[in-house]
Amino acid sequence: MIARRTVLSPTAALFAASFAAFAFASPANAQFAKPEDAVKYRQSAFVVMGSHMGRLGAMAQGKAPFDAEAARHSAQVIETMARLPWEGFAPATESLDSHARPELFRNMDDVKRLIEGLNAETAKLPAAVGSLETLRTQVGATGQACRACHDKYRRKI
Amino acid sequence: MIARRTVLSPTAALFAASFAAFAFASPANAQFAKPEDAVKYRQSAFVVMGSHMGRLGAMAQGKAPFDAEAARHSAQVIETMARLPWEGFAPATESLDSHARPELFRNMDDVKRLIEGLNAETAKLPAAVGSLETLRTQVGATGQACRACHDKYRRKI
Repeated sequence: MIARRTVLSPTAALFAASFAAFAFASPANAQFAKPEDAVKYRQSAFVVMGSHMGRLGAMAQGKAPFDAEAARHSAQVIETMARLPWEGFAPATESLDSHARPELFRNMDDVKRLIEGLNAETAKLPAAVGSLETLRTQVGATGQACRACHDKYRRKI
Repeated sequence: MIARRTVLSPTAALFAASFAAFAFASPANAQFAKPEDAVKYRQSAFVVMGSHMGRLGAMAQGKAPFDAEAARHSAQVIETMARLPWEGFAPATESLDSHARPELFRNMDDVKRLIEGLNAETAKLPAAVGSLETLRTQVGATGQACRACHDKYRRKI
């Protein structure tokens, strides 16, 4: 059997070559070349999400001036980010040092439920940033959804 | 003058307290409590963007099966991410060890031009993922926009 050949422009070929590690990704965890990449990916998504939650939290607390446009941008980034990290919690990452407690990997049904709860709240954020009052309420609800998972499955390191 | 008091629900207050560092952010770089946070933020955005560019690159190169839905998700994440990192290149971060060459901070007009070039390409990604052929072309163009900046302002460490 002859492998299907793909034709790439020189530019695309050069670019794709820099991601050659993906050729070695296992089918079970095809998005990441190695478990460390999955941890780095999920942590990066949490850093971006946390930064924007911090911006909304500062507005909600009156430590930063309310700025509806900036709040809307942060809300949209948070909504996108909140849907990303979970594929990074692959079983192969359990043995790696991170904030994740071992219990997380043994309770994926519960984790999934908590994730859906978070996503339900972050989905309401973009519509809630029109006024400081509604922003405050929805930032509180989103923070509660964050903590519902952190309290059970995140440890300080 | 009496400082305006803000009323937060107990949940929101608890949540906002975890971002108290923002109270100390300088006006000049109000989104980050310290320069290290800005570096971590921009690097995290690049990690997430790079992961999804890798997924599209793998499809473009035939190393992963073409999946229009997954490609659309990655394209949307990339478009969002490509607009984020730049505020992390604050002048105060120049002295910190990172991939950024010192030249970057002395040529911000050029960097801005390159960023706008990247954003112009990433904005076309979501509409380009409908077929492998158009995906391949636009992944190539986007990768070229990435490299236009990396070649000048990014160093290996």
